[in-house]
Amino acid sequence: MSNDRRLRLALFGSGRIGQVHARNVAAHPNIDLVLIADPFIDGARQLAEATGARAVQDPEEVFAEPGLDGVIIGSPTSTHVDLISRSAAHGLAVLCEKPIDLDMDTVLACQEQISGHTVPIMLGFNRRFDPHFADVRRRVEAGEIGRLEQLTITSRDPKPAPRDYIAGSGGIFRDMTIHDLDMARFFVPDIVEVTAVGANVFSDDIEELNDYDSVVVTLRGSGGELVTITNSRHCAFGYDQRLEAFGSTGMLLAGNVTPTTVRKFGSEGTEEAGAYLPFFLERYAQAYQAELEAFAQSILTGAAPSPSFEDGVSALALADAAVESAATGKTVAIRKN
Amino acid sequence: MSNDRRLRLALFGSGRIGQVHARNVAAHPNIDLVLIADPFIDGARQLAEATGARAVQDPEEVFAEPGLDGVIIGSPTSTHVDLISRSAAHGLAVLCEKPIDLDMDTVLACQEQISGHTVPIMLGFNRRFDPHFADVRRRVEAGEIGRLEQLTITSRDPKPAPRDYIAGSGGIFRDMTIHDLDMARFFVPDIVEVTAVGANVFSDDIEELNDYDSVVVTLRGSGGELVTITNSRHCAFGYDQRLEAFGSTGMLLAGNVTPTTVRKFGSEGTEEAGAYLPFFLERYAQAYQAELEAFAQSILTGAAPSPSFEDGVSALALADAAVESAATGKTVAIRKN
Amino acid sequence: MSNDRRLRLALFGSGRIGQVHARNVAAHPNIDLVLIADPFIDGARQLAEATGARAVQDPEEVFAEPGLDGVIIGSPTSTHVDLISRSAAHGLAVLCEKPIDLDMDTVLACQEQISGHTVPIMLGFNRRFDPHFADVRRRVEAGEIGRLEQLTITSRDPKPAPRDYIAGSGGIFRDMTIHDLDMARFFVPDIVEVTAVGANVFSDDIEELNDYDSVVVTLRGSGGELVTITNSRHCAFGYDQRLEAFGSTGMLLAGNVTPTTVRKFGSEGTEEAGAYLPFFLERYAQAYQAELEAFAQSILTGAAPSPSFEDGVSALALADAAVESAATGKTVAIRKN
Amino acid sequence: MSNDRRLRLALFGSGRIGQVHARNVAAHPNIDLVLIADPFIDGARQLAEATGARAVQDPEEVFAEPGLDGVIIGSPTSTHVDLISRSAAHGLAVLCEKPIDLDMDTVLACQEQISGHTVPIMLGFNRRFDPHFADVRRRVEAGEIGRLEQLTITSRDPKPAPRDYIAGSGGIFRDMTIHDLDMARFFVPDIVEVTAVGANVFSDDIEELNDYDSVVVTLRGSGGELVTITNSRHCAFGYDQRLEAFGSTGMLLAGNVTPTTVRKFGSEGTEEAGAYLPFFLERYAQAYQAELEAFAQSILTGAAPSPSFEDGVSALALADAAVESAATGKTVAIRKN
Repeated sequence: MSNDRRLRLALFGSGRIGQVHARNVAAHPNIDLVLIADPFIDGARQLAEATGARAVQDPEEVFAEPGLDGVIIGSPTSTHVDLISRSAAHGLAVLCEKPIDLDMDTVLACQEQISGHTVPIMLGFNRRFDPHFADVRRRVEAGEIGRLEQLTITSRDPKPAPRDYIAGSGGIFRDMTIHDLDMARFFVPDIVEVTAVGANVFSDDIEELNDYDSVVVTLRGSGGELVTITNSRHCAFGYDQRLEAFGSTGMLLAGNVTPTTVRKFGSEGTEEAGAYLPFFLERYAQAYQAELEAFAQSILTGAAPSPSFEDGVSALALADAAVESAATGKTVAIRKN
Repeated sequence: MSNDRRLRLALFGSGRIGQVHARNVAAHPNIDLVLIADPFIDGARQLAEATGARAVQDPEEVFAEPGLDGVIIGSPTSTHVDLISRSAAHGLAVLCEKPIDLDMDTVLACQEQISGHTVPIMLGFNRRFDPHFADVRRRVEAGEIGRLEQLTITSRDPKPAPRDYIAGSGGIFRDMTIHDLDMARFFVPDIVEVTAVGANVFSDDIEELNDYDSVVVTLRGSGGELVTITNSRHCAFGYDQRLEAFGSTGMLLAGNVTPTTVRKFGSEGTEEAGAYLPFFLERYAQAYQAELEAFAQSILTGAAPSPSFEDGVSALALADAAVESAATGKTVAIRKN
Repeated sequence: MSNDRRLRLALFGSGRIGQVHARNVAAHPNIDLVLIADPFIDGARQLAEATGARAVQDPEEVFAEPGLDGVIIGSPTSTHVDLISRSAAHGLAVLCEKPIDLDMDTVLACQEQISGHTVPIMLGFNRRFDPHFADVRRRVEAGEIGRLEQLTITSRDPKPAPRDYIAGSGGIFRDMTIHDLDMARFFVPDIVEVTAVGANVFSDDIEELNDYDSVVVTLRGSGGELVTITNSRHCAFGYDQRLEAFGSTGMLLAGNVTPTTVRKFGSEGTEEAGAYLPFFLERYAQAYQAELEAFAQSILTGAAPSPSFEDGVSALALADAAVESAATGKTVAIRKN
Repeated sequence: MSNDRRLRLALFGSGRIGQVHARNVAAHPNIDLVLIADPFIDGARQLAEATGARAVQDPEEVFAEPGLDGVIIGSPTSTHVDLISRSAAHGLAVLCEKPIDLDMDTVLACQEQISGHTVPIMLGFNRRFDPHFADVRRRVEAGEIGRLEQLTITSRDPKPAPRDYIAGSGGIFRDMTIHDLDMARFFVPDIVEVTAVGANVFSDDIEELNDYDSVVVTLRGSGGELVTITNSRHCAFGYDQRLEAFGSTGMLLAGNVTPTTVRKFGSEGTEEAGAYLPFFLERYAQAYQAELEAFAQSILTGAAPSPSFEDGVSALALADAAVESAATGKTVAIRKN
């Protein structure tokens, strides 16, 4: 950060994602993690000790803390809109994990509530900050492949989340595909149509929950661009996160990441790379750091945050459309706001 | 061929694809190319001279030739059903270029007509014989990736065919995608649903012809398998022909082909491979040879030909469903025959 | 071949390499294989039957045959100089397998003998015709990497030849490395110094024969170019044949060859390519065909053959120098002829 | 670090490499950078301010500082032995940049002097900590490729250091190759023979300094292993740092590193990776961190440091042998200590 001012942040939630943010803030040379709020105070205390912060149980203590610049919301989804609204009302910048909420009406009500506030509200679509995807985006913008015509996103989790998690997740489109829908909008902001197909090929649990374990989504951009998203809730070779941008004069492809460049050659096979980084904590470690930096810059410079609250609304609208399309077998048009 | 008997074949059509077949037959140690029939006798004569065959103008001369084993039909699509029916009636084995016809009723009438004959009728879906795709298929069958769950087919032509060709092609789904639909069925024979989206992003010509220059098709197999096909009528980096088979225990991927393994390293970029093989004549040169060998084996051993006439019917049914889906925005169910 | 004249060739030797040449000639549209000469007449007869040639026992029958254009010498090394000399004396063009002979004096005597004849004498350093290496050479010549500074050649056989073969092979430098020494001269014709190191790491047989199973050779070109050759008589992952040309503005690298582009992804490893082509018959199949074509062109056009007899002399001189260097631990200077 | 004790370190030298170490110490959660000593006090002050340390001019202030655990020596080579000796005498652990000194007698005298002290003395051969090379080493040790038979090290700098630097560098073998000689010993500790060849192909400056701009070194291990090192003082495509370990049952290869996985496909070339990491600061950023961690562990646990002072002596002995071999054209045997 060019600006010398130190930032003071608080964190809601000391779970897996909260821990990622807490450690990144603690390691940042110009940001202090002041408070960690979690009703499960034990987790908050443990994390606070490791990161030099103070643990509190009640969110109100965050809002009462003098001199805070902003908050990071890593608590359960159901708490997001409440914490966003209250933080904004207290003049605190917000970096909120996706999704804003699983229910569009709730999201729109929140949007209404915060509309009068000027603090930056940023959504945690971390993949926009992945150096591989960001490099493709930058080069597409620079015209390296001419006009973008097709975008192919492959996104598979190593294995399904626990049944309980999936039961409350809002379904694969709102929980998992939503990252890819935002990635689609990162390249093609104006999506006009959604066509989705879902299937159950390996998980009885997921089927019983009336959810899909595998989906394909096709999006149409206002310029005729076709985006294809392929998802699976499991993947034997790890976290599969790839992207192909096909344009009128060429193609750019971002692949999976191995920890080293080592290749093995044996009698059965050759040029074998190692296992891919196993899941999002490893694959997107750099992305979370860059996301934090972008949030800090937004606070310091007043620049509009990206991805914004509106990006979160749009991604949810696409997820809702995918739910409808998969259920009805019909392409769903996206209404302009 | 283990069998010592020499085969005697005739060829209909001396155009681009006819030339491929003629040269492959001429180079085959156990097959003789006896006749080449083409109303445009000059082309037939030129090709006949180069391959040691005899040129004739009238198809009837083929049917009158004694001792023929079979025919290869590489003439225009509109002649296919007539030549198939007459060849079968004369007891000649048939290798016919795809598609059988652009009209399903015509195809079904032909199927009816040939139903009494026992000669092998084989369809020219050459990609089944591509060593790269065939290797993936073989390894999927062998269980290397467990149960097949998702199949991703990327297929882009280097540049659009001439406007006149496209005008009579039956549209991108029946002309170009049909190869990929057959490839889908090569892995997932029983397709139950087709969802297609088409777009116009670069060609005014194609748009004026009410055709698409870019499409995405999603197929559902009876076992829940999801197949995605991405097509474009142009591709700046050559002929893009790739396939990913994703299974419960792993993935197999077949990529594009470069003439050499040479890689270049410079200050701007590293590990740069050369240009891909430019189009189907180069990419599928080996496939055409293997297809001919399979046809010969079918004649010699009486083994059922693959791909069969029925495979041609099924691929056309999927193409027709894609046309309907793209036009209506609805998923189309495939009726069982 | 542009020239319409058919060529008539004879072949000496019906062993492994003779069979490669015989089949390539038989498959060539403009060359006839007339005679196959081998004292082991059974092998000659079998090969002759498969390729439409006539088997003879006595080389003299070849020289008595009217209308022959040339001969291919694929018989044992000990017969090479005699057959080269007699063929040249009879006005027959010669394509002789490497090496000319294992003894430099014998080679120079042969050179003296054939010096008055004008027929093309070509050496079978087949790797110059490998499309991968040839592409690197062409691009180096075209200036793609500026001035060539370093050349790295890796060449490993899948497994050692039988003990008897190695006992009579003249040692690894004259038998195996000689191919790489010629490849070095293909890029850097004027080699002025040889430094060689040999080792025994895996084969007691080879050690008992006072030969090395592994060697490294460093060559210096007259322009300061450094060439490194790494050899092993075994290689667990197949036939390892690679080349790196490092120049002032970039690098070109030719790698090993897999039959397909298929890659496998599993929980243990990713991006695994298949096994490499197992040995020279497979890896250099195209090279042998291109070599034959070059030989034919040399006969038809009178163009100087490449690699020439002199290239064979030079490669042997480098191999002899490597033998001396490895034995003495001293760099050996190459005398100019 | 498992151990909770905080370490207190001082740094000698605030130049390029000193800055790397200073920032790594400052970012380490359990190590404090207390002092930075440099006669050029301005540089020390600037770095001290950025890292929370105190700048001093006189090394004596370091030795007078109470409670120090160790020092990192990143000052010019000529100061190394003096600082090592004095640090050891004061009971301070030492992490010293390579080389210990350019003169073997000086090095041995230093070894004599420190022989009575028990503090860890560690040498800064950072490449042992590179995750790519370390992974190959770990897997070789684990037996993945059977017995190691050949090791091929490619090491090229992007461009020559300034003439003045090279003039005082001790020559390419002692300055640049020494890293690769240590890497060779990382895999094959017991080297018994050195054969080196040097050339001048691009730099008049280097030639005037009686140094080489390009070298090839071949080492023989006591088990017959052959190691090949290829160096160049320039490389158009960046920092070229590769390693191949060839064993009886397979091969492991560590390649260069690109910042992202992005590949570009265009009409001229395909699968093009981006530029490699430009030089050692970028390529070995992780290695410097891991090196620091290993140094800390050595202090905390009393484990013998690796690479040790003796590793530094051995690498210099190999470099000296390479100098002699290149000058005399003779293989040089390494005396056992």
